[in-house]
Amino acid sequence: MQSLLLALDFGGTKHAAAVIGRGERTWRAYKRVSSIAHPNAESDMQIMYGLAYELLAGEQPAAIGVSFGGPVDAAAGTVILSHHVTGWENIPLVQVLEQEFHAPAAVDNDANVAAWGEYRSGAGQGADSMLYITVSTGVGGGWILKGKIWQGADGMAGEIGHTVVDPNGPLCLCGKRGCVERLASGPYIARRAQEWLEAQPERGKILRGMVQGNLDAVTAQVTSAAAAQGDELAWDALYVAAWGLGVGIGNAINLINPSRVILGGGVTKSGERFWQVLRETARATALPQMRVDIVAAALGDDAPLWGAAALAEQIADLEADKHR
Amino acid sequence: MQSLLLALDFGGTKHAAAVIGRGERTWRAYKRVSSIAHPNAESDMQIMYGLAYELLAGEQPAAIGVSFGGPVDAAAGTVILSHHVTGWENIPLVQVLEQEFHAPAAVDNDANVAAWGEYRSGAGQGADSMLYITVSTGVGGGWILKGKIWQGADGMAGEIGHTVVDPNGPLCLCGKRGCVERLASGPYIARRAQEWLEAQPERGKILRGMVQGNLDAVTAQVTSAAAAQGDELAWDALYVAAWGLGVGIGNAINLINPSRVILGGGVTKSGERFWQVLRETARATALPQMRVDIVAAALGDDAPLWGAAALAEQIADLEADKHR
Repeated sequence: MQSLLLALDFGGTKHAAAVIGRGERTWRAYKRVSSIAHPNAESDMQIMYGLAYELLAGEQPAAIGVSFGGPVDAAAGTVILSHHVTGWENIPLVQVLEQEFHAPAAVDNDANVAAWGEYRSGAGQGADSMLYITVSTGVGGGWILKGKIWQGADGMAGEIGHTVVDPNGPLCLCGKRGCVERLASGPYIARRAQEWLEAQPERGKILRGMVQGNLDAVTAQVTSAAAAQGDELAWDALYVAAWGLGVGIGNAINLINPSRVILGGGVTKSGERFWQVLRETARATALPQMRVDIVAAALGDDAPLWGAAALAEQIADLEADKHR
Repeated sequence: MQSLLLALDFGGTKHAAAVIGRGERTWRAYKRVSSIAHPNAESDMQIMYGLAYELLAGEQPAAIGVSFGGPVDAAAGTVILSHHVTGWENIPLVQVLEQEFHAPAAVDNDANVAAWGEYRSGAGQGADSMLYITVSTGVGGGWILKGKIWQGADGMAGEIGHTVVDPNGPLCLCGKRGCVERLASGPYIARRAQEWLEAQPERGKILRGMVQGNLDAVTAQVTSAAAAQGDELAWDALYVAAWGLGVGIGNAINLINPSRVILGGGVTKSGERFWQVLRETARATALPQMRVDIVAAALGDDAPLWGAAALAEQIADLEADKHR
């Protein structure tokens, strides 16, 4: 019986692969690479094949788990599209990989797979029901309910980033005002700080200094660093993100009453003050009888890869049961 | 084998009971009564015993299903409290009923049991996952996920009424601004219409006429009737409710992506224009890839009783399996 699991993570700008033995808790081999300048589905596949064959080193995987950065029909094993890379429309990725590697495969979108990773190997262990949220370029989410990924009727569940928390708030690309992503994602935090620096010339001295007056160089990370050093404009820009996330999480708690909420992604590394506002706002939004257990993700950027490995383990176990 | 199921519905101001045969689709006997003037848990129980013994007419039930109008620990079979009636704190209702009737019993809160009723016998039949919402004195909700009631980690799931959709909106009794209940429940619709009638003496002629100038007599039902006759102030007051519900439902769809949303309660009888705003707002709030299948409840005030009967059938089946 083959015991090697292959985990693949197709990102928008980075790809990663790893191999791990069944039941093991550390990678046997792991590699993460950047995508090429003008990627398409074919170049993504070539990069991933290269990574996989290198890490497998001639061995045959027992199963393959895949995280994909875009909408996926998990039941059919098909990628619906990528928002970042052309050519991914309706690609039967599970079938393609099964033919290439002669092993069963499973795929889901990155937020669901990362949620699965945190549940099986990270901060979600032991939680009966959990919501995983990643806050970086966008705001994504995935549910684990009764020990299973909850995909929803159209495979789209977990879109906390597009819930509305302030209908009079700023306009998002999605066409709505004041959705969580518009308030809390990294690029929008940066944009808010930039706009306020332009409109309020007397404020934001520390932040201005950090980018040497070049407002185009303001990022969420720099904003967070300036806030940590006492820049009040930077903090105000971060506050909006923490508040928006807090209301969105509080609403999700009211609706589903999960036992745990797990937050990952670059924006959540914005310090204790950020977390405090987020937790207090979620607490004030949720009904008092509900637990509000909001913790940091444990697996960082590798959450999708760990989730992919756990997916692979699951189908390897199913195959083993079939042949018993 | 006894084949009679006893269904009980403890409401705040009304109680109902019914008996039905296993596998049957019409009540063998059914009775609904008003509560007494100053009720307590004991008077509620006496009324319910009276109803039950009358309807059972000497027969022994195979199982008992119970809907309770307040927070319940369904796993323990215990009522946590009633917001309307004193003396219900930590009453082990399942145990009490099992001793009284010598039959297995199950209890859950009214929103969950009504959701279960609509799923098993009403507008939710065939839905893989559904959110049931009742909009009347308050706004309550219950989830059916993968064919089971979803209670949540603290038994509190489904509280769409206390999700925030307008943080700058009016203050609710719960301490938050612009939660769905504050915008959409019957008493708050009436209050909004009253306040606008006071502040805008030139508007609301039809509505004023209907209550003969007595603003205290304005209810949500009268507001709805006035709106149907073309009163624009009344319609504006209803519009806020439809809009708030629409955003709340759209947010719930983004989070869980259910296959169906079912709406019951008096406020939802406010006509086609109300439903149109509600559906359009939910559609605009949910991501375009998600289905937005929002339909009217089928069972009316009897939804909790039908759900209680379905609960009873479930435990009767479990008992039968045990003794097989």
